Amino acid sequence: MKYIVIVKPKKAILDPQGKAIKKVAENYLQSEIKDIRVGKYFEIEIEKEDDGLINKLAKNILSNDVIEDYEVRKA
Amino acid sequence: MKYIVIVKPKKAILDPQGKAIKKVAENYLQSEIKDIRVGKYFEIEIEKEDDGLINKLAKNILSNDVIEDYEVRKA
Repeated sequence: MKYIVIVKPKKAILDPQGKAIKKVAENYLQSEIKDIRVGKYFEIEIEKEDDGLINKLAKNILSNDVIEDYEVRKA
Repeated sequence: MKYIVIVKPKKAILDPQGKAIKKVAENYLQSEIKDIRVGKYFEIEIEKEDDGLINKLAKNILSNDVIEDYEVRKA
């Protein structure tokens, strides 16, 4: 069973990486970009379906729940 | 208009980051994980719809097309 976990900075949190990439992108494209937010993307394959296991992994290992939100989906 | 860009290591490429997280995850969960692959996740907001602009950004700035694949979606 394949799961996808997406980890993103919480909305209220400043995203310096996103700001830096936004500047580079605007220079490169010569076009205005309203916002870029950068997160992490995980593809996790386990033997059989276990939503609880993947949520536990996402919450405690893959993300820092003080500054990040996470989302779990089945691929 | 909001776009999502996902950048992943090409299948044939070794993913040391994924392997490292796999080991930590298996120890933490005390459960076997078949595979973990790690990529980057971008949310990009622009004024109006422009698939070409986002594809150009994804291909030339957000990913390294020698070792990574990218995917563009509308949010």
